[in-house]
Amino acid sequence: MTTLKTETPQEGFELALKLSRMAVKATQPDSDVLKTLRNHYANNADSLTAVSHVVAVHFQTIAAANNYWK
Amino acid sequence: MTTLKTETPQEGFELALKLSRMAVKATQPDSDVLKTLRNHYANNADSLTAVSHVVAVHFQTIAAANNYWK
Amino acid sequence: MTTLKTETPQEGFELALKLSRMAVKATQPDSDVLKTLRNHYANNADSLTAVSHVVAVHFQTIAAANNYWK
Amino acid sequence: MTTLKTETPQEGFELALKLSRMAVKATQPDSDVLKTLRNHYANNADSLTAVSHVVAVHFQTIAAANNYWK
Amino acid sequence: MTTLKTETPQEGFELALKLSRMAVKATQPDSDVLKTLRNHYANNADSLTAVSHVVAVHFQTIAAANNYWK
Amino acid sequence: MTTLKTETPQEGFELALKLSRMAVKATQPDSDVLKTLRNHYANNADSLTAVSHVVAVHFQTIAAANNYWK
Repeated sequence: MTTLKTETPQEGFELALKLSRMAVKATQPDSDVLKTLRNHYANNADSLTAVSHVVAVHFQTIAAANNYWK
Repeated sequence: MTTLKTETPQEGFELALKLSRMAVKATQPDSDVLKTLRNHYANNADSLTAVSHVVAVHFQTIAAANNYWK
Repeated sequence: MTTLKTETPQEGFELALKLSRMAVKATQPDSDVLKTLRNHYANNADSLTAVSHVVAVHFQTIAAANNYWK
Repeated sequence: MTTLKTETPQEGFELALKLSRMAVKATQPDSDVLKTLRNHYANNADSLTAVSHVVAVHFQTIAAANNYWK
Repeated sequence: MTTLKTETPQEGFELALKLSRMAVKATQPDSDVLKTLRNHYANNADSLTAVSHVVAVHFQTIAAANNYWK
Repeated sequence: MTTLKTETPQEGFELALKLSRMAVKATQPDSDVLKTLRNHYANNADSLTAVSHVVAVHFQTIAAANNYWK
């Protein structure tokens, strides 16, 4: 990751998703464990809301970095 | 999504709702699973508050992007 | 909702309360269900704190929109 | 509440505490219920952390409103 | 607390820790109760993450107050 | 920690991870306890999301401190 600049809000949103996963992988690097955990949170409404919350915080940062794509 | 600009705060709020769902769909793309989960969180007070929280964060971003519709 | 402008911080706070409920109603439009849920969260300390948290995020947005009523 | 201006960060912090309680009272106006709930959250570590979180968000708003008391 | 100014980010971080505890003490002033609660949250991973979250919000405020120590 | 400046967003993200752990260590300095707790949160989806959330808040601060590496 060398820049927070993206062409569109859509790409910015995808970068926010990527950043939210980066901290998870840094804390739990074992991809087998992560796959098992995914089965839990992808089928739990509150877990999905929590993931969406983290993405929202990163999207705020990325939007500011791109001057809101004005 | 190509812009965060909206005409009114009301439209901005609707975009915030849409963004909060986008991250959920990106994490759980199966619409049948999502429909089942909806039954849970739409009938649980704390789940609804959590959804409202994510919308609030996105609304903050969108409001800034629109210079607060001043 | 056509503006985030309010005369005073007090009115801004009331708008924040309103916004926090708007996302809940958008997700669960059935007012009978909402009345039942209210009985739960209005009598649960942690639920009330969670509601207060969402209001705080919206109040931050509204305060910025009003240049902090300076 | 007619202003977010305070003389010192300390007073700003006290205002943040007050705001965090305002949303709770708006949602549950019955002071007897609130007294009972207080007994719960004042003796629960995670509840206290959640209260502290809400205060932190309001303090951020108030600090910005006071240009950080520079 | 008369200022949010600190010499270094490190000192700013320590102030953020102090602020996160201030709201807890304001809500539960009994130091014996707080000592008992500490035993809980200091040995619970999710409680520690929640404390770290509050510190992060305060650190954001303090960093802005210090113009990020640029 | 004497500066929030980093060369790249990647390094900024690593600093955000470090800050999220700093508050945990300040609250629970015993490294044996922390190792035991790690076993819990590194294998729990919601705990990992919560950690990711704290990192997102710190990353927002660090990104602002670096003028978003523009």
